Order: sequence, then structure tokens, then C-alpha cells
Amino acid sequence: MKKKDIIVQKYGGTSVATTKRIKEVAERVIYTKKAGNDVVVVVSAPGDTTDELIALAKKITDNPIERELDMLLATGEQQSIALLAIAINALGYKAISFTGSQVGIITDKIHTKARIIKIDGKKIEKALKLGKIVIVAGFQGMNTKEDITTLGRGGSDLTAVALAAELKAKICELYKDVEGIYTTNPNIVPKARKLPKISYDEMLEMASLGAQVVNGRSIEFAKKYNVPIYVRSSFNEKTGTLITGEEKNMMEKLLISGVTLDKDEAKLTILGVPDTPGVAAKVFRSIADRHVNVDMIIQDVSEKGITNISCTVDKVDLKKTLIALGRIKSEIGATGIIADENIAKVSVIGVGMLSHPGVAASMFEILAEKKINIEMISTSEIKISCIIEKKDAEKAVQAIHRKFNLDKQKGSKL
Amino acid sequence: MKKKDIIVQKYGGTSVATTKRIKEVAERVIYTKKAGNDVVVVVSAPGDTTDELIALAKKITDNPIERELDMLLATGEQQSIALLAIAINALGYKAISFTGSQVGIITDKIHTKARIIKIDGKKIEKALKLGKIVIVAGFQGMNTKEDITTLGRGGSDLTAVALAAELKAKICELYKDVEGIYTTNPNIVPKARKLPKISYDEMLEMASLGAQVVNGRSIEFAKKYNVPIYVRSSFNEKTGTLITGEEKNMMEKLLISGVTLDKDEAKLTILGVPDTPGVAAKVFRSIADRHVNVDMIIQDVSEKGITNISCTVDKVDLKKTLIALGRIKSEIGATGIIADENIAKVSVIGVGMLSHPGVAASMFEILAEKKINIEMISTSEIKISCIIEKKDAEKAVQAIHRKFNLDKQKGSKL
Repeated sequence: MKKKDIIVQKYGGTSVATTKRIKEVAERVIYTKKAGNDVVVVVSAPGDTTDELIALAKKITDNPIERELDMLLATGEQQSIALLAIAINALGYKAISFTGSQVGIITDKIHTKARIIKIDGKKIEKALKLGKIVIVAGFQGMNTKEDITTLGRGGSDLTAVALAAELKAKICELYKDVEGIYTTNPNIVPKARKLPKISYDEMLEMASLGAQVVNGRSIEFAKKYNVPIYVRSSFNEKTGTLITGEEKNMMEKLLISGVTLDKDEAKLTILGVPDTPGVAAKVFRSIADRHVNVDMIIQDVSEKGITNISCTVDKVDLKKTLIALGRIKSEIGATGIIADENIAKVSVIGVGMLSHPGVAASMFEILAEKKINIEMISTSEIKISCIIEKKDAEKAVQAIHRKFNLDKQKGSKL
Repeated sequence: MKKKDIIVQKYGGTSVATTKRIKEVAERVIYTKKAGNDVVVVVSAPGDTTDELIALAKKITDNPIERELDMLLATGEQQSIALLAIAINALGYKAISFTGSQVGIITDKIHTKARIIKIDGKKIEKALKLGKIVIVAGFQGMNTKEDITTLGRGGSDLTAVALAAELKAKICELYKDVEGIYTTNPNIVPKARKLPKISYDEMLEMASLGAQVVNGRSIEFAKKYNVPIYVRSSFNEKTGTLITGEEKNMMEKLLISGVTLDKDEAKLTILGVPDTPGVAAKVFRSIADRHVNVDMIIQDVSEKGITNISCTVDKVDLKKTLIALGRIKSEIGATGIIADENIAKVSVIGVGMLSHPGVAASMFEILAEKKINIEMISTSEIKISCIIEKKDAEKAVQAIHRKFNLDKQKGSKL
């Protein structure tokens, strides 16, 4: 017998927020099964469950111990998988659910933002062979001490992509409350256009810059193992966006694929540090030791051997970062530390952007025209980001989107 | 270093229903730890969580598949253990939580009412040695296929007693929303008296007959492994009731230790079956195959080779039992099956009752005097139970309690 294609489907929290929606997901899963595929489903915690559980823990203490927070949070997805399995079985199809621990999703020991080390697909393959639909709890795994861990923001997408890689799935479908990837946020720019296809690299920049449809870690993983991702709506049958390897033909036509906005970062500036070797290393080692990811880093031009170092971090990590920096402040001879949560990051993304040097200039021009001050700039091969004041965020996105003609079907031109 | 005494404490759902109460439990646990003991804590799901989760599953289907129902229900206790561990750690003491699966509570495969086969205490002992307070999810375990199972009604008490047996704990303290074991339900008889001490056997009859403070399976387990149980209130410091082996001196003085009432049973009567060998076996095998426990069984005196068989089962199992009996009805030649949910069981319990033959007579007399009809009778060495109409239940308990002078401090006399 020919081996069936495996399709991994992931449904987010809004898709399983009520029993009615869970039944709808069950029908969609069965539809895919009936089409002749083996189906593995990954689900998030229902609705706002995760936030509610965090709020409960915070009612006990401001700093809940992270091992136990993971133990608490993991119950959300466990409820979803059980309810979905109940719904599918009630419709006459065999489904079996597994927690992250049960299915052998092994992670490192960093609670609340663990990284997947390996997945043992045997249990899933065995169940698929028996004709069962397999349902796996997203967002969670266990470390080698058998403690439950959680994967952090976007963790359920990551679970789905990692399973798809391990099981050599034909495709990883991510069902979202949006219809796909847009050139920018349609709430800010009503003319934003849905992209039929986008490369991993472009998507990586989109994701890490706050497009927030698919988390960056999931895209990295998909790129590494070449897992095609199809992002689509869980509420209608419209076509979505395929995220896949670059195809020259398509990609070269597109200069800019999107404009993104991120309001979840905070800016930190360490003032008056000596411009000597090792200072930056000390600063960012001290932050890394607290498992905080730094996004942008800027070091000012040194004056009289003294300089300022600025960086951005996730707002939720600001407190931790300030504590880390506070500890090393006198050691590195800094004169002060400033934190600013009142910022936004606006970025343009596009493969091959660097072969068109005018992109950066166009972006800065349009911001200047709108009298929006640029506080920090950072560039990569396929994106340009500017930190601006939060109050200007939406105005900047709208202006840049229009400037690059992103509402036109054929892609942008300079 | 002398090995410390291990104390197992179990807190029920009302004790962990709010974060405020969880903090109170944390303080009580720490108090016991500070007194120089090793402490293992078992907790139930918060408040009505279990019922709410069942209701959620029932919104999807009337008959949720039981493996997945267990997966769902197990999240309740998992939330409690995490929150309690967070609370204890926040107070500066080290606590670590484990699910039933993590701690090696191995059960049979019967979902929703699994039996404990063995417990691997190593993980707990290791954590205790490190000075940690160990918190274990009650009510749950896993079968040898690594599926999560739940232990059924009173399962958290059972977890506590089983852990106390495995760890050779000094005592197993069950914190309840009552202060101890009473001669009968104080809501029905205000003069009901709290017993300072009661034997496993008496308690077994009390429990199985609906005193409902401690589940019968837990007492059986405690008796088998000689685990002393101390039942007390989680809301005050008053003395409770010690459940332990029989001590002749104390026990001989007491004739009747309590009157119990159970309104959770239903009566079934199988009409017109031939009085031939094997019929009763077929009836009760068919019920047992559905994992339904039968309580009382009565076979009428046979007339012309035809008889009626009556039995009582838990109301929740009535539907399953009727399906089982329906299937074998024609095979055994029964003419009909009657179910009656409108019954109550009232019982008197006391060690050494059988050496006082007057107990049964007294009980029947007082019921007759109150014009209460007896539908079924069953007796054991230490109890006498009567099935009566539900409307007479409270009246019967009050009359019997008074008849046996149970409100007097010195125990009852005939």
C-alpha cells in the first residue's frame, strides 16, 4: 500500500475558543482525512486561557517560579486536544490526543521559552498507521528531567512546523484568524494586499518585525528543514499564503513585499561608557544570561573615548534587562541607563532590496516628508527598520505602503 | 542524620478554589515543614473545575470518549499543583509539583475509574532529600501505555493514602470542608456528634454508605497498608477524627458509631427470571463488564421456578446498567426490568453489632413506628442497611439517631 501524505494542521486559540468552534475544527480535520491524507493536528489553548492562567499565577505572586508556571500553562493546550479528540470521535472518526511530554517533544531546560531539541515521531506514526487522527498539544514539551516546558510566544506554530519536519509532512497548514500574509496590517492600511506566496527569508523579517501572523522561530525551523507552510483562515475557505523556499522567477519581480509595525519593543540606552574592547560584550552577555533576546543594537560614534550603546528588547523583558544592566553599570563605567517604551518599529521587507539602493533613501524621504523623526536605523539584506515615536506609527506605515505602491497587484516598483 | 517523618497532606477542591485559599494552604504546608517533617501534599482540582470540564465535554457529545475525558479532567489538578507550588515558592520555601504521570502512579486501563497498580516513590524521595516540599496531583495516574487515567470519585483521597503507604508516611492528613467524622449528617441531625476515633472497618461502612467524607476505596487501601488517616477541617485548627486499626478497649464500648444516608443510588429489578443456576451470574457479569459496581443484591424467594432479582447501583451508572441488562434480557428469559431512582439507603454502623442481635430489630421497629416502608434490607458484620422511599430519608435518619442515643457522649446502648 502506498504511504499516505501526512498533512499537519495547526489551529490557534480563537479556533478552539468555544465548543461550537471545536466542532467546526473537527469537521475540517475529518474533511482532510477523508480526502485520503494522514492528519496530525496541533492546537493552542482555548481563547484567552493562557492569559487567564498567567493572571491567576500573578494573583499569587509577581514572579511565579517558571517551572511551575509551565506546569500551569500546559493545561490550556491539554484541554484543547482532549476536547477536539472528543469532538472527532463523536463524529465517528478515530482520534487520539497527546501532550507534548507524551509525544516526546524534548526541549532544553529554559522554562517559559524552551527550544525544541528533538522530537520522537514513533508514537504518532504508530497511531497514524492504525488509521487514527493524531492531535498534539502545541506550545509545550518536556526537558530531559521530565519537567514540562513551554516554548514561549508562537510556540504552537513551532510545534506544528517541527512535527511536519520530523514526520516529513507534505505541508504544514497554519489556520489563523487572518486569511494570509498581507503587504502590511490591513487595519492600518485598508488597501493592504494578500500575498499568494512569500519566501522564508522575507517572512522571517516580517515575523520578527511584528507582522505577528507566524512567529519567527517557526519560519526559521521551516526554512532549515524546508517545510512548506500554508497560512490560511480557519473561518473561511479562501486561499491563503504559501511560505516556501525562494523561487527566482517570482521573487525577482517583487522588490518590496511588505511593511511591518512592531509596538512591543522598548529602547534602552546605556550612557557614557568607555569605548574600549569588551564593553559591548559584557553588556550583551549580561542580557543574554537572563535569556532576553536583543533586537536592534546601535553604538554611537565615540567622542573622546566615550560612547552610548542603545538596543531594543521585548517590552516584557524590559524589567529583567534593566536589572541585568543595573548590576554591571558600575563595572563598565556607564553614567546612566535610559529606558523608553514609547517607541515603534516600522520596517520594509523585500528580497533583492539591496540591489536597489534607493529603498532606504525612499523610506527616509517619506518619513521626513511626514515630519517623523527616526531614532534608530537597522538594515539587513532584505529589510530596513526604523525606530520612531509610537504616536507616529500608523501614519508611517500608511505613508510607506503608499510610497512603494504595495496596494497594486504587480508588486512594488521604485 | 535521623530520617525525618513524612507527613502526607491532602487538600480538597474547596481548599484551593481561590488564590487566597491556595495561599492559606501554602502557609499550612510550610507550618508542617517548619515543625521538622518532610511534607508531601496532594491536591484536588480547584472548586468546581472538574464538573465544569465535564460539562464542556458534554456540550460536544453526550458520550465523550473516556480516554480523552481523562486527558481533559487531569488538567484540573495540574492547575492546582502548579498554583500551590508557586505560592509556596513565593513564601521562600522550595516546592516542586508533579502530575500523576510524572510521579509514576501506574494504574490499570479503565479510564474514568482506574485502579492504582503501583507507585514509584523514587522521584518524591529524591525531591524530599533535597529539602523540597513535594506536591502531587490527586485523582490521576497513567496506564502502562502512558495514557493519562483518572481514579474516579474520591480519587484524590486515594492518591494521598496510596502515597502515604508507598512512602511509609507517619500519617495521612485529609483536609476537608468538615471537621471530622460524625455519628450522622449534622445537617439532618443537629445533635450529631464528632467521633475522635473510628476503625477502618466502621469507616468503610460509613464511607460506602454515603457518609461521603472519605471514599471507601481510600479506607480499604489505608486498612490494607495500615496507614493512619486523620480527617480534619482545612478552615480551622479544631481536632478531627483519627481513622485507624481497631483497638479492642475503645471499640467494645461502642455499639453503634453512626447512621448514614445515601441518595445517590438507583434500584433495578429484573422481573420473572427462571430460578436456575447461572442466571444471577449472567446478570452481574454483564453489569461488571461495563465496570459498574453493584451495591445491594436481593433475590426474591422463588415461586414456581420464577423469581425477581433486585440490585442497587450508583445513579450515574444507571443508563449503562440498563443497556447491559437490556442486551441479556431475552437470553435469561426476564419478563421486564424496572428502574427506580426515587430511593434512599439508610444504614446503622457499629463494630460488634452482631453480638447484639437487637440492633436490626430496633432499627426496623423505629422505621415501622414512623410508618416508613422498607423496600430492601442488607446486612454485614458491622452494618444494617434499608432501602426506603427517598421522601422519608431525613425522617428515618433522625429517628434512628435518636433511637440509638448517638447524641450522647458515651456511645450508644440498646
